[in-house]
Amino acid sequence: MERVTVILGERSYPITIEAGLFNDPASFLPLQSGDKALIVTNSTIAPLYLDTVVKSLEKLGVNVDSVALPDGEQYKTLSVMDTVFSRLLENNHGRDTTLIALGGGVIGDLTGFSAASYQRGVRFIQVPTTLLSQVDSSVGGKTAVNHPLGKNMIGAFYQPASVVIDLNCLKTLPKRELSSGLAEVIKYGIILDADLFDWLEDNIDALMSLDEKAMGYCIRRCCEIKASVVAADEHENGVRALLNLGHTFGHAIEAEMGYGNWLHGEAVAAGMVMAAETARLLGSFEQTDVERIKRLLVRANLPVHGPESMKPEAYIPHMLRDKKTLAGKLRLVLPTAIGQSEVKGGVAHDVVLSAIGCCLI
Amino acid sequence: MERVTVILGERSYPITIEAGLFNDPASFLPLQSGDKALIVTNSTIAPLYLDTVVKSLEKLGVNVDSVALPDGEQYKTLSVMDTVFSRLLENNHGRDTTLIALGGGVIGDLTGFSAASYQRGVRFIQVPTTLLSQVDSSVGGKTAVNHPLGKNMIGAFYQPASVVIDLNCLKTLPKRELSSGLAEVIKYGIILDADLFDWLEDNIDALMSLDEKAMGYCIRRCCEIKASVVAADEHENGVRALLNLGHTFGHAIEAEMGYGNWLHGEAVAAGMVMAAETARLLGSFEQTDVERIKRLLVRANLPVHGPESMKPEAYIPHMLRDKKTLAGKLRLVLPTAIGQSEVKGGVAHDVVLSAIGCCLI
Ligand SMILES: NC(=O)c1ccc[n+]([C@@H]2O[C@H](COP(=O)([O-])OP(=O)(O)OC[C@H]3O[C@@H](n4cnc5c(N)ncnc54)[C@H](O)[C@@H]3O)[C@@H](O)[C@H]2O)c1
Ligand SMILES: NC(=O)c1ccc[n+]([C@@H]2O[C@H](COP(=O)([O-])OP(=O)(O)OC[C@H]3O[C@@H](n4cnc5c(N)ncnc54)[C@H](O)[C@@H]3O)[C@@H](O)[C@H]2O)c1
Ligand SMILES: [Zn+2]
Ligand SMILES: [Zn+2]
Repeated sequence: MERVTVILGERSYPITIEAGLFNDPASFLPLQSGDKALIVTNSTIAPLYLDTVVKSLEKLGVNVDSVALPDGEQYKTLSVMDTVFSRLLENNHGRDTTLIALGGGVIGDLTGFSAASYQRGVRFIQVPTTLLSQVDSSVGGKTAVNHPLGKNMIGAFYQPASVVIDLNCLKTLPKRELSSGLAEVIKYGIILDADLFDWLEDNIDALMSLDEKAMGYCIRRCCEIKASVVAADEHENGVRALLNLGHTFGHAIEAEMGYGNWLHGEAVAAGMVMAAETARLLGSFEQTDVERIKRLLVRANLPVHGPESMKPEAYIPHMLRDKKTLAGKLRLVLPTAIGQSEVKGGVAHDVVLSAIGCCLI
Repeated sequence: MERVTVILGERSYPITIEAGLFNDPASFLPLQSGDKALIVTNSTIAPLYLDTVVKSLEKLGVNVDSVALPDGEQYKTLSVMDTVFSRLLENNHGRDTTLIALGGGVIGDLTGFSAASYQRGVRFIQVPTTLLSQVDSSVGGKTAVNHPLGKNMIGAFYQPASVVIDLNCLKTLPKRELSSGLAEVIKYGIILDADLFDWLEDNIDALMSLDEKAMGYCIRRCCEIKASVVAADEHENGVRALLNLGHTFGHAIEAEMGYGNWLHGEAVAAGMVMAAETARLLGSFEQTDVERIKRLLVRANLPVHGPESMKPEAYIPHMLRDKKTLAGKLRLVLPTAIGQSEVKGGVAHDVVLSAIGCCLI
């Protein structure tokens, strides 16, 4: 079993990583006999894992309720949250209830924000079932839903009481989703950990074939990095911004192509290459390191170009809407070496346009 | 000028109380030249005060935007919040924007929760225009919207950066709304401050006729009490619960009668009498003090009975849905003397039914 603690004073919490955790009632502590809980999941995950999790919770003596939302990023909205609140109120869940997010980042983000808001905050457990949510979205307390005019625009910083990662559930995850998660894994290597990047160059094939030992190590290491960044900067005023490498470009791709057509990790992969090219054009990153990044992404079955149909100019309006934008100036996370990165303000639009141009097919 | 500081470490903030503040740009600090802000108000208040506030902010050099929502408790919903988010996104408000709530408790609660949630939290200034919001809802950081199945069920604890109270705006407030605010004022006297209760017995007529000196003192004293309670217990785990005197009964009345037919303060007034009767039946409160409370409420033009059409049994299901309920047992705030109160768990349903019965006409 791998274990990481996210250190945030009174709100510290454990992340537990192992194959088979869903079958073990003890995985779901701090829940205990007599507690009430609502599992929020979706229509894809419910038939695969809901019964197992419910059985374990019932063995623990928990009064379990569940709701399965429709599957998809387009349901990460305030109005779908409202159906969760209806369920909670109809079944008399009080302030002492616990929400359990059983699913990927969509379910985790929506359930987390629901937990933050229901009666001004109830307990919440993350049970992430995609690689992306295991290494990224379930750790750190960022929760949100989308607005038609922008992704993740409505939300809260809200920490879970624990994170439960059962490695077995990756076996049913579509391969494209696995690769999408690997984009975030590779991101950690680029921004903060050259050793991890090296390790990934040696072990990417083991990860692609779900080798349990490699995967357990990889998820633990990513959670450690994310946890330490979050502990240092819970509300994203400083170092936490580095986690957005590739995301300003990536969000532009996701928004322009319609959410769901490009997976988040795919857009981030292309976005990281664009960020690397931007840094190279600014003279602060080596061409050979751009190539190393691209090679690793390709081995993880990830794109290293933007969508063919999307012109460089089409990125800018989306990028200006980014939360990091200050008064019309682009602020970007850029690598300075493999394992090192910085936030760079006032990046000229034409440099960004050229960098995107380098990433056309 | 009267001034109170709400002491919450880094998130401490000032409450400023004076006639004419809306005309003074300095009232709206910490806003400063170059800042962007969205004023959220409603269709009743906009024609009365929006221009004045906008002019003061423009003098300060603030880039001001505004949105007027429809007026009424029935618009304190997630879907109306969504229109605020649309406005923010359409007009490119970033994380550095400030939301200004110009209105009563409905606008304050909805705007506060919008500020808590927009991009996971932006700055927020309370400009309460009803007595109720000045002495109660604008102080303490509770924000929320309603759900069809329960009032204030969705929200956040989120503190404003400052509270600006212009006494002049009470002149346009309907008299019934003024009385509704006085119910919360009287509540502070009953739960925590016998001197305030005495002072109110001497000065209730001056307050009813909007005597500026009396009103300034009264609001300042109520804000002090609320601020000290909030400072001691921000998240309502202890002493803050006392502020709910009369509210468990009152919420039952509001819910049963349809929100808006009984004003919040009116329902709380009747609810405080019911709480006092409950305490009297339990032998922990004097009959003569029940009478003092009723006399003061009557002088403030407030009801001391529940609605004629509402049977005692009709209260219970609503009361059981209250946030303070634990596992089907009623927990109530009850006075033990004028100026003293307690949270009492496990109150028997039949005592509550008799107490309500004492308050039928
Ligand atoms: N909160 C954060 O810090 C943060 C960080 C990164 C991403 N996110 C958010 O996460 C979301 C993306 O998350 P995601 O990539 O997990 O997508 P997702 O939640 O949509 O899951 C991807 C797909 O895989 C399915 N699925 C999930 N687990 C499965 C399993 N074990 N077996 C079979 N199918 C399974 C889902 O039903 C879905 O169809 C986005 O909304 C993004 O904004 C949040
Ligand atoms: N957050 C908290 O701690 C807290 C505490 C108590 C009450 N509340 C909430 O506050 C709300 C009630 O607040 P309220 O009593 O202020 O009601 P309100 O906001 O509905 O205002 C009452 C009416 O007076 C009008 N009005 C406001 N100011 C005016 C003015 N200066 N001149 C003329 N008309 C004016 C409004 O348009 C409205 O029609 C409820 O939703 C309640 O849940 C919240
Ligand atoms: Zn991401
Ligand atoms: Zn009240």
